[in-house]
Amino acid sequence: MTSRNLVGLDDYLREKKKAVEDALDGLLPAADKYPAIIHRAMRYSIFAGGKRIRPILAIASYEACGGRDPTSFLPVGCSLELIHTFSFIHDDLPCMDDDDYRRGTPTSHRVFGEAIALLAGDALFNLAYQLIVDSTFDEVTKVEVMKEMSDALGTEGVIGGQVVDIISEGESPTEDKLRFIHSKKTGRLILASLKIGGMCAHAPSETIRRLADAGGKLGLAFQIIDDLLDVEGDFEVVGKEAGKDSVHGKLTYPLLYGVDRSRQIAEGLCGDAKHVFEQFGDRGEILSDLTDFILHRIY
Amino acid sequence: MTSRNLVGLDDYLREKKKAVEDALDGLLPAADKYPAIIHRAMRYSIFAGGKRIRPILAIASYEACGGRDPTSFLPVGCSLELIHTFSFIHDDLPCMDDDDYRRGTPTSHRVFGEAIALLAGDALFNLAYQLIVDSTFDEVTKVEVMKEMSDALGTEGVIGGQVVDIISEGESPTEDKLRFIHSKKTGRLILASLKIGGMCAHAPSETIRRLADAGGKLGLAFQIIDDLLDVEGDFEVVGKEAGKDSVHGKLTYPLLYGVDRSRQIAEGLCGDAKHVFEQFGDRGEILSDLTDFILHRIY
Repeated sequence: MTSRNLVGLDDYLREKKKAVEDALDGLLPAADKYPAIIHRAMRYSIFAGGKRIRPILAIASYEACGGRDPTSFLPVGCSLELIHTFSFIHDDLPCMDDDDYRRGTPTSHRVFGEAIALLAGDALFNLAYQLIVDSTFDEVTKVEVMKEMSDALGTEGVIGGQVVDIISEGESPTEDKLRFIHSKKTGRLILASLKIGGMCAHAPSETIRRLADAGGKLGLAFQIIDDLLDVEGDFEVVGKEAGKDSVHGKLTYPLLYGVDRSRQIAEGLCGDAKHVFEQFGDRGEILSDLTDFILHRIY
Repeated sequence: MTSRNLVGLDDYLREKKKAVEDALDGLLPAADKYPAIIHRAMRYSIFAGGKRIRPILAIASYEACGGRDPTSFLPVGCSLELIHTFSFIHDDLPCMDDDDYRRGTPTSHRVFGEAIALLAGDALFNLAYQLIVDSTFDEVTKVEVMKEMSDALGTEGVIGGQVVDIISEGESPTEDKLRFIHSKKTGRLILASLKIGGMCAHAPSETIRRLADAGGKLGLAFQIIDDLLDVEGDFEVVGKEAGKDSVHGKLTYPLLYGVDRSRQIAEGLCGDAKHVFEQFGDRGEILSDLTDFILHRIY
């Protein structure tokens, strides 16, 4: 990545992050709305930090496909952040990964108790569908987006990945299983973010197929980089206890391939994704820069 | 209810219950599909019994509004059973009501562990949206149904009711709070069942409004009757430990009004609902009979 791009991307990230967070603030129920505790819990986890990478990827994809009304797209982009947040609130619960911290702040159940954390996850999940339903797109597009979202989340997607992640703890890692967990649990929602951006810009099906191809690779790379950060990072940077995944006996790329080979795999996947984005010409430049940004986290 | 109606309704319930259960069997992922444990858990809770009252009410409403293709409607009706099941799997978890039995069989987390039970609930929630998306109705109807479903489930609906139920435990009961919990936690999905049936039959908005009115009353009556069964029933009939709600310090109608007054309130609500259904003429007869059936559970 050239320094020109770095500066340009930095502005882009800052601008879109603010747009997403302002939109989230307006779309989430007010913190004092009855019953207030659930709305406070939803807002707590949504505003506990985060790079807003999924909505930003979706916006970049929408724009790369010629989408002209990013304001209308914002609620759909935000629905991806809600789904991501639902997923990690449930993942952090004591019966799942039992994490006390995320992004350097106490997890939902540590602050609100397990019952409210569970319900805050459910409520964010549901609100994501509500945001798509209430968006200003035509009905055909809304149904297409909801199909992609529900396919991404189901037992062939994010939830399936979480299941295999749990039942594989302490097992010896195999390439197939690891790829399944990473592609589904993290990768599938990143893939969906790119596809949904294209769908809302009414991109032709061949373009959606290319976005899916790139999204699958970028999503897998994203999780490999997360694994590497878990091994190498410290609390200040990662916001949770380093090495936590290894303590849990989780299957990770560094565990199976070692750190250097894992980096090479992530680099290769990002290279493949960028190759697809290059086919979008100038419009795809931001998607390529975002790919570098995601890869850059390990350096 | 005359004996003629009782016999007629008995056949109706048996026929529709079988249709719903056959459809559920075909719509849920196969028990051996990878990752099998989540699909087994989803099927376990779905097929652990139940009267299928929500899908049957939805079918009856669809038919009362002149809907002519009940086979096409079945997946949408089944989505209501999936949502109901998601909701009670999460409700039964140790961090919520901590119930060991439901309908006389061990609850999901007792069989599959808490993590898989949590994810089975999430997966059923998501599958409900998938069934609506994949149904054969036009996009405008699908979006209308999904709007109703997501409004019914959110923090102004089922999830809001669960929240107030939890935070009110051990508090002194007030009429307003009790009505909020019961109308939202149980009543809202019954109301949605009636509305969604009407929506799929393309009923005019005035009819949908009347269905919502009757559904609100029937839904509240349904939960009052559940409260009465909890006080009066035994394990054989209710399938869970009687008096469990009182032990939890839950707010219930019998606690606030006593048994006799609670019965009178349920009777009054069912009478009001039947008054609405009578306006549908012969077509509304099954809905009136179903109302009697629901009320009949306390005698």
